[in-house]
Amino acid sequence: MALKAGVVGAAGYAGAELIRLLLAHPEFELAVITSNSDEGTPLTQIYPSFEGACDLAFTNHENPALKECDAVFLAVPHTAAMAQVPGLLEAGVSVFDLSADYRLDSVEEFESWYNAKHTSPELLKTRAFGLPELFPEGLERLAADHAAGKPALVACAGCYPTATSLGAAPAVRAGWVDGTVIVDAISGVTGAGKRATQRTHFCSASDNFEAYGVGKHRHTPEIEQILGLKDRLVFTPHLAPINRGLLSTVSMPLAESARGLKIEDVIAHYQEFYAESQFVHVLPAGSLPRTASVEGTNACHIGLALHEASGTLIAISAIDNLCKGAAGQAVQCANIVYGFPEACGLPTVALPV
Amino acid sequence: MALKAGVVGAAGYAGAELIRLLLAHPEFELAVITSNSDEGTPLTQIYPSFEGACDLAFTNHENPALKECDAVFLAVPHTAAMAQVPGLLEAGVSVFDLSADYRLDSVEEFESWYNAKHTSPELLKTRAFGLPELFPEGLERLAADHAAGKPALVACAGCYPTATSLGAAPAVRAGWVDGTVIVDAISGVTGAGKRATQRTHFCSASDNFEAYGVGKHRHTPEIEQILGLKDRLVFTPHLAPINRGLLSTVSMPLAESARGLKIEDVIAHYQEFYAESQFVHVLPAGSLPRTASVEGTNACHIGLALHEASGTLIAISAIDNLCKGAAGQAVQCANIVYGFPEACGLPTVALPV
Amino acid sequence: MALKAGVVGAAGYAGAELIRLLLAHPEFELAVITSNSDEGTPLTQIYPSFEGACDLAFTNHENPALKECDAVFLAVPHTAAMAQVPGLLEAGVSVFDLSADYRLDSVEEFESWYNAKHTSPELLKTRAFGLPELFPEGLERLAADHAAGKPALVACAGCYPTATSLGAAPAVRAGWVDGTVIVDAISGVTGAGKRATQRTHFCSASDNFEAYGVGKHRHTPEIEQILGLKDRLVFTPHLAPINRGLLSTVSMPLAESARGLKIEDVIAHYQEFYAESQFVHVLPAGSLPRTASVEGTNACHIGLALHEASGTLIAISAIDNLCKGAAGQAVQCANIVYGFPEACGLPTVALPV
Amino acid sequence: MALKAGVVGAAGYAGAELIRLLLAHPEFELAVITSNSDEGTPLTQIYPSFEGACDLAFTNHENPALKECDAVFLAVPHTAAMAQVPGLLEAGVSVFDLSADYRLDSVEEFESWYNAKHTSPELLKTRAFGLPELFPEGLERLAADHAAGKPALVACAGCYPTATSLGAAPAVRAGWVDGTVIVDAISGVTGAGKRATQRTHFCSASDNFEAYGVGKHRHTPEIEQILGLKDRLVFTPHLAPINRGLLSTVSMPLAESARGLKIEDVIAHYQEFYAESQFVHVLPAGSLPRTASVEGTNACHIGLALHEASGTLIAISAIDNLCKGAAGQAVQCANIVYGFPEACGLPTVALPV
Repeated sequence: MALKAGVVGAAGYAGAELIRLLLAHPEFELAVITSNSDEGTPLTQIYPSFEGACDLAFTNHENPALKECDAVFLAVPHTAAMAQVPGLLEAGVSVFDLSADYRLDSVEEFESWYNAKHTSPELLKTRAFGLPELFPEGLERLAADHAAGKPALVACAGCYPTATSLGAAPAVRAGWVDGTVIVDAISGVTGAGKRATQRTHFCSASDNFEAYGVGKHRHTPEIEQILGLKDRLVFTPHLAPINRGLLSTVSMPLAESARGLKIEDVIAHYQEFYAESQFVHVLPAGSLPRTASVEGTNACHIGLALHEASGTLIAISAIDNLCKGAAGQAVQCANIVYGFPEACGLPTVALPV
Repeated sequence: MALKAGVVGAAGYAGAELIRLLLAHPEFELAVITSNSDEGTPLTQIYPSFEGACDLAFTNHENPALKECDAVFLAVPHTAAMAQVPGLLEAGVSVFDLSADYRLDSVEEFESWYNAKHTSPELLKTRAFGLPELFPEGLERLAADHAAGKPALVACAGCYPTATSLGAAPAVRAGWVDGTVIVDAISGVTGAGKRATQRTHFCSASDNFEAYGVGKHRHTPEIEQILGLKDRLVFTPHLAPINRGLLSTVSMPLAESARGLKIEDVIAHYQEFYAESQFVHVLPAGSLPRTASVEGTNACHIGLALHEASGTLIAISAIDNLCKGAAGQAVQCANIVYGFPEACGLPTVALPV
Repeated sequence: MALKAGVVGAAGYAGAELIRLLLAHPEFELAVITSNSDEGTPLTQIYPSFEGACDLAFTNHENPALKECDAVFLAVPHTAAMAQVPGLLEAGVSVFDLSADYRLDSVEEFESWYNAKHTSPELLKTRAFGLPELFPEGLERLAADHAAGKPALVACAGCYPTATSLGAAPAVRAGWVDGTVIVDAISGVTGAGKRATQRTHFCSASDNFEAYGVGKHRHTPEIEQILGLKDRLVFTPHLAPINRGLLSTVSMPLAESARGLKIEDVIAHYQEFYAESQFVHVLPAGSLPRTASVEGTNACHIGLALHEASGTLIAISAIDNLCKGAAGQAVQCANIVYGFPEACGLPTVALPV
Repeated sequence: MALKAGVVGAAGYAGAELIRLLLAHPEFELAVITSNSDEGTPLTQIYPSFEGACDLAFTNHENPALKECDAVFLAVPHTAAMAQVPGLLEAGVSVFDLSADYRLDSVEEFESWYNAKHTSPELLKTRAFGLPELFPEGLERLAADHAAGKPALVACAGCYPTATSLGAAPAVRAGWVDGTVIVDAISGVTGAGKRATQRTHFCSASDNFEAYGVGKHRHTPEIEQILGLKDRLVFTPHLAPINRGLLSTVSMPLAESARGLKIEDVIAHYQEFYAESQFVHVLPAGSLPRTASVEGTNACHIGLALHEASGTLIAISAIDNLCKGAAGQAVQCANIVYGFPEACGLPTVALPV
């Protein structure tokens, strides 16, 4: 029998993507969708792509039916997640949180970057960080807990941290990287959210390319935490005129000991690192990832190059910011917690064109 | 056991879409893909979205393995299909032809519009026209033939004819339409094919909108044939800066007898007309179709409006030109011929954003 | 000495375009820009393209400096224009109004379509309609008045009416057209205005094509008035994923007497019709207009085709909705009223790519 | 009296941009345009934006009229420029070369990166490098020579080198930068040239973002040469789905001595550095450049940020790759050589939207 799933913040872009994935998932039944601002509105009125596929309407975040779900996916802004999580866990509901509220290990760092008080810091000890390829243990621990009847809390990784870390981790964990890592990344406009603003207006965002939040984007401490690069990471995000897609170009100075590496060695190491993954594909030498080739999927494509004169490794990784960078990763985490095959219900093939 | 399927002309856009659909189809096994110009090249090199999902390489059109398939889908230009069809049928292979070669009932009309001699006109008598919502009988006849061991030939409808006819047929068949019908339609750039030309160069096609082939597009006789509007159809196609998507705006002068219709009556009639369809959705009054909402799916969304002062019915229909307008429709026809559920393996929900 | 010019509603897209044109105009000095919502904000903060070119800041609409201008251009919504015009005229300021307030000859029609009371209907008698290629007389009358010291009021034509009428008028005025005219037109997203809405969000508008306002767009009575086609015009606007550009495809049933026309005759007639125009270019047979080729300019490109079987003339015209469809046309009208060369200060060459 | 100008390779994108600029330039008369592949074709057939503005047709590169020009602008691929330059100089014609043939000081470096023999290395001694804001002396020398009757040869800087160097030079020349500089840059698709390829096909390039030529782009030695960063520069170019525009994000490790700098100091230094420039605008703290805001112009917008924890200065610069990055810069160089005002005939204000 299918598990009942709820999506909180379902009218936003990550929420709508969760709906898409859960409707197609053989083990979940989508039971509740909430959006305070669209309460009462049928889903198809906001997202006509669900015409004929789902006749749910949005309810509000206080809908008691959420507590009767097996799993609730939170696609709300930071602090709004904290407001819901303890109550859901108490009701025995497992929570897959796409917000930033439980991502950072350090409460202080959270409170300083997000300028908000953390109201349930004790949960940071038991939550798992949701980036399965790099942190499988926490999710396996929750799977065991869940089998023993305990609800799970997963803090799913952010979009930039996911792509950047998948690209950098195999080198960093191998001890190859020394010095300051430069991350120049781009996101599609869905990354800026559904709220209509001057920046997301078609006439501003199309035919344009720009950087934003230079030196102060909130994904910085999360990437530092994942990679162990405190104060050694320069992260510059950019906005590209595409709907979905995130590409992270990571330039890593090689440690003395790693200077002799050939590109074939690097690629072989990365392929070995991701040998078990159904989602991460390390491309052969000379091939570079395209965001279009992973759009709508939970895949991550990684390309690699060496700049030998300066001793720099360049890793470039592409994901769909709403899928592997948000909703897809959350479902992947849920699959692990519930003991389903990791790729269950998750798209892996993008439109070819 | 899965049926073996082959795709001829698999490196083109409709061919790649066939690959995507057949890989996801539970009843087919993709066995052969051909492309004379890309012979020997792995599929993933041309279309990296298949990374991890398919390790076939392109063979050439003469690959004898085609004749060992149960079904072959032809995604080649007109006249190239004719060159293959008789041999395949003779070998007992069912053929789903996406080209124009067997669409027109009249050999003369084919030869005049396509400026080519038809080399197997006798097949026109037994082929079915592949537009299931409007012409189910032919496909059902082939299903019976197939059950009796006879291979099928389906001439799948073109992209503009599919969208335009789905929008116009309920009114035309009800006898509501009199006079000249004006069809202004747009296609995404995939409609112009994979060949790189000045017109399909990003720098020409983006930030631009233009008409083309005014008064002489080869889909004109096909639409006339489907709707029975010989010399009463003005078809003006336009190129829009989107990858996939086709929207057809059909303005139909109402016959005297239909002048009193209210928009609610019209919508009710259309909804009744498509009540059995899993793909065609007639939108409520005030809603209009968006190409993005059907992208990557076999769905067709139809919106309707009346201009009472002049007695004109406006039907607007949106499809994905590569899916419902090409590959998806071919698979839908195959589903019918083989007795599978009509929507088997076919996507119906587009990315919400 | 340069004339002092003011722009009211200068933070909107048409307003910003007026700023661009007036800054480059040798006979005007841009003295005042107003925007109630952006009062106090420097222009370059909203529109960084003016960096280094203009250090004005927005003031509010009540800025008394407006009455010290020679010419004020109004780029405000309907009814907001009415609120300003009488006072400006009284102060001796000539007004070039881009809103709809003074376009329709009939007060009743205005009040019914715009659902608002007209507060200065007497001005409709003396205002000129601003579409110089089709209505030169009114503007010449105002030029004479101006020379005699009287301020002018020009109601500049709307974007869809401009493109559609330039495409249709040569045929309609020749008496060639009988029956119902079908206009299917597209606009770039700037046509929807600067306000950030779900419809204009990049993620809704990009990769999408849709119709809107079918059968009820407020430009309908204006086109009917210009062409004399009351109740014989079906106008269906569409939204295309481009910033600027408007293309109107006009299908006109030919009167019996015009059935024998050859396309060369039609083109010759159109070229003759626009022989004096520096902005309207009638393309040779086989060529069709592209919106990109007129972007940022005051030009209009027209292509023509005949569908002989049904006796239909198809005229396709492309303009930039913000320039020839709004700000450029206003400056063109001002040039005529002030006796400057008609093309003075107006761009006519688009970026080639 | 206007100087006669010729454009060789005029059918390419940089060539067409040269035509646009020269047609609008008060001191030049465009006399000859050449394109071997489009010989005999009217300009307006390839670029309809020139309708009504220019009735020249393409001639071939051997057109003797080139040698009667005062100035010839070469917009041909590398090695094709070398084939023309000596003959033109000998005929007394000044040459503004947009190719790479005379950019690199070192013949060896040219021959190794471009895999071609240099046939006129002696000209490297007298040519000026065409990046006026950073290398004014060479151009002033040529201006003096020209006044004395000697034809000039200017090797105009490439697009990536221009944007990157304008962003980095003020810091590098101040001695602030130590260690390896990381340049992640994007170009619009015009940067890939007019040839229709799979990569530039609309259906590949739109809705996509990717890197290319990582570690081996030919602009690398040119940037190294301009900035004096031999083997200390990692340059990773990316392709963005815009027509025009180039944005370079340069991350520079600060030397010990520059660690205490505040962002206000940095900005003040940059503004001082470019105080005389009419084209380069250094934005205030918190503002970042947008490619759309310089499209179609010869402007460069620069934004700056400091990452204090790692001691990194981030400079982001935006130009139009075809204008300031190619044709505009060539005309700017010509203005200097001929003693015209530096901004003569050059656009500085982009479309606001």
